[in-house]
Amino acid sequence: MRPDVLETLVSLAKRRGFIFQSSEIYGGTGSVWDYGPLGVELKNNVKARWWNAMVRERDDVEGLDAAILMHPKVWEASGHVSGFSDPLVDCKACKARFRADKLADAQCPRKPSKKPGEHTDCQLTEPRQFNLMFKTFMGPVEDSAAVVYLRPETAQGIFVNFLNVQQATRQKVPFGIAQIGKAFRNEITPGNFTFRTREFEQMEMQFFVEPGTDMEHFERWKQARLDWHLALGLDRDRLEFHQHGEKELAHYARAAFDINFDFGGSLGFQEIEGVHNRSDFDLTQHQQFSTKKLEYVDQAANKRYVPYVIETSVGADRVTLAIMVNALREEAVPGEQEGRTVMGFHPALAPIKAGVFPLTKKDGQPEMAERLAAALRKKFNVFYDEAGAIGRRYRRQDEAGTPFGITIDGDSTANNDVTIRFRDNMGQIRVGADKVVEVIAKYLEADHKTADSALVG
Amino acid sequence: MRPDVLETLVSLAKRRGFIFQSSEIYGGTGSVWDYGPLGVELKNNVKARWWNAMVRERDDVEGLDAAILMHPKVWEASGHVSGFSDPLVDCKACKARFRADKLADAQCPRKPSKKPGEHTDCQLTEPRQFNLMFKTFMGPVEDSAAVVYLRPETAQGIFVNFLNVQQATRQKVPFGIAQIGKAFRNEITPGNFTFRTREFEQMEMQFFVEPGTDMEHFERWKQARLDWHLALGLDRDRLEFHQHGEKELAHYARAAFDINFDFGGSLGFQEIEGVHNRSDFDLTQHQQFSTKKLEYVDQAANKRYVPYVIETSVGADRVTLAIMVNALREEAVPGEQEGRTVMGFHPALAPIKAGVFPLTKKDGQPEMAERLAAALRKKFNVFYDEAGAIGRRYRRQDEAGTPFGITIDGDSTANNDVTIRFRDNMGQIRVGADKVVEVIAKYLEADHKTADSALVG
Repeated sequence: MRPDVLETLVSLAKRRGFIFQSSEIYGGTGSVWDYGPLGVELKNNVKARWWNAMVRERDDVEGLDAAILMHPKVWEASGHVSGFSDPLVDCKACKARFRADKLADAQCPRKPSKKPGEHTDCQLTEPRQFNLMFKTFMGPVEDSAAVVYLRPETAQGIFVNFLNVQQATRQKVPFGIAQIGKAFRNEITPGNFTFRTREFEQMEMQFFVEPGTDMEHFERWKQARLDWHLALGLDRDRLEFHQHGEKELAHYARAAFDINFDFGGSLGFQEIEGVHNRSDFDLTQHQQFSTKKLEYVDQAANKRYVPYVIETSVGADRVTLAIMVNALREEAVPGEQEGRTVMGFHPALAPIKAGVFPLTKKDGQPEMAERLAAALRKKFNVFYDEAGAIGRRYRRQDEAGTPFGITIDGDSTANNDVTIRFRDNMGQIRVGADKVVEVIAKYLEADHKTADSALVG
Repeated sequence: MRPDVLETLVSLAKRRGFIFQSSEIYGGTGSVWDYGPLGVELKNNVKARWWNAMVRERDDVEGLDAAILMHPKVWEASGHVSGFSDPLVDCKACKARFRADKLADAQCPRKPSKKPGEHTDCQLTEPRQFNLMFKTFMGPVEDSAAVVYLRPETAQGIFVNFLNVQQATRQKVPFGIAQIGKAFRNEITPGNFTFRTREFEQMEMQFFVEPGTDMEHFERWKQARLDWHLALGLDRDRLEFHQHGEKELAHYARAAFDINFDFGGSLGFQEIEGVHNRSDFDLTQHQQFSTKKLEYVDQAANKRYVPYVIETSVGADRVTLAIMVNALREEAVPGEQEGRTVMGFHPALAPIKAGVFPLTKKDGQPEMAERLAAALRKKFNVFYDEAGAIGRRYRRQDEAGTPFGITIDGDSTANNDVTIRFRDNMGQIRVGADKVVEVIAKYLEADHKTADSALVG
């Protein structure tokens, strides 16, 4: 079992500005988190890579950004009003609430010395169904006519816009619609840092195909999505497919695989993405509830049908957390007493691409370093730091996951050259100041593993 | 008065896939809109430009992405629970609801023939205060302890994270924190397409300064923000500053200017951004309600203080709407009977950068065009279209705002060159196929107005 690094990560995330607890000065909001300066850049880089791979670089997938608030009938059609619930039990003694289907993992808050699942003294109520959708009221009066829900998934925004998008873009089946956006679930037992939260962001794509061709597209997307995670730098042996057995499979699903990542510790392998064959369930439901035809007309073949849907659904927060867990390493430094903590992000994902450091605060070094930082900042994120010993400045950027350190020393002002220090192996090369952008750009575009072995070329 | 183009725009937005009504197949959700394939790219380009200008290209502003759900005490401290309300009147006859302070503009839905403000037959109730925050319940039980609000502004997420961000980044005052995110207001009378909606996206920056230096920073930001809108291509004579008079000014504000854009028609000049001097109001309130010190310690000067805040707050949907209104033109085409509709976006904002068109479907033209489209797609958004007359294909891309059309004709396959057609003046140049990326990149980076006059060089 890999070690549990979540606790180390929570502390590093706060110290370096990746992730803060929401409303921390008020004691926090239950399982809601805010992305700090480094976190927002990391997560935006993840989202941009997904959008580029899924939308911009393909001619068969269109983008969408549907609203969080939707017509309440959407959630009747989708089955969420009647069926999106967890069984809940209360303990009359300790007042805690547990998921009835997860009692074996639940710990009594009154008696933390007891093992999870030991509820012998607890007075548990009978399970009752608790709907996970957040509801609110639109318009000035709180009556049932005005109830709207915060969407529990982004997928339905895609289904109800299927024909609008198809007609505006004149796409032909097979084609997909992709979107990134927030969703909300009133989880009974959220937790594990940003792994299970009540407010989260999804990156979902629905690929519309002709019935009968669905399993072929399903297999193709399954492989494409695994490849995407590998290209982010996630270790192959931390990733696995988990096939939904008959009992796990939603009643409308023809096939489903999760892509699981090993978060280490007791959390272990957990879902970061789902690839699902949803059949024609959703479009057919919306057809019935809205009484609008949601068919695709294939004019060339002179036929019409309700397409099947292959869905790929990633949690943006979960994959960001996976990237942080995967990147975190604490290691000894040869010849030094103190070790170092490194976030070994793929350079393309790193929140800051380069730290720029004048070795001393005199002899024109800060001026040259600031000029260089300003020039680099037009191309990518740069952090300028002149405070403290150079070793400490390197260490801070190691923790931030900054792949390149650029140091301006006494020779730099004379020769117009700088040292580039590589985060991963601490190797250094000397290059002309006007070559820095070019050298770094090469590494940003390279495949991560190749770039690693090619470092200090 | 400029013409009212909103109606034309709503229709074009749906036809071309910029903006759809939310949950349209269910009759729509009140004043909520979804961004289609072109709209999401346009809005993302606007957001990316703001983020680059405000965060990535500056070393004195840090990014943040705080959650929508916050601790309920935040909204007590900010004054929203007690004061964020509009006066509401009901009409007992027609059952409509109006803002009591906007009765002069309100129309009776029973008697649409009457002019706005004529409520002589209406039986209006006394005004009562209606809080504009959406509320929901976190955790399984709907009791008052679990009430949380959908944030009505993103600013408070910045204030409560002020010290976390400052300590993680070691920024020195003056510095800013910026974020982009959704906010929600239960407006009594939303409307005018995406201008006033219940779900909307803000781009806000709070700049923390030493008291006494606040008006100097205020003036600098006011100018910087106007310049940003001009660089997007918004016409200078459609933009104006509106200074808040004493009655408009919030009680804590020392100064406030809106940046107004002329949407044309009866809507006219309306706020798209606000620049505010909020004094130390927010941090002082959070200090009091959270009992946590929110002071900045200036070690060099050996003093500590609660900073003043200069806020710049843009509506991402409003500025996107302004860009569409500004870009839309219907014009005659010399030598043709039918005119054309053009979305004259700044090339850097355009959802699609280039259309790629084989003139005919034979002689290897589609193959060459598809190869070129695939190569260009690695650099920017490209639309490949081989269907129908070339004139119609150009017109469709004019409506999408695509600045460049690349046509592959009979000579192209022999000479490896193509025609680039410019959206704005319909001029054409012939360039080598391997020069296309370079030529287009030059225009994308150029200032819009300069690029215009330099077209066909």
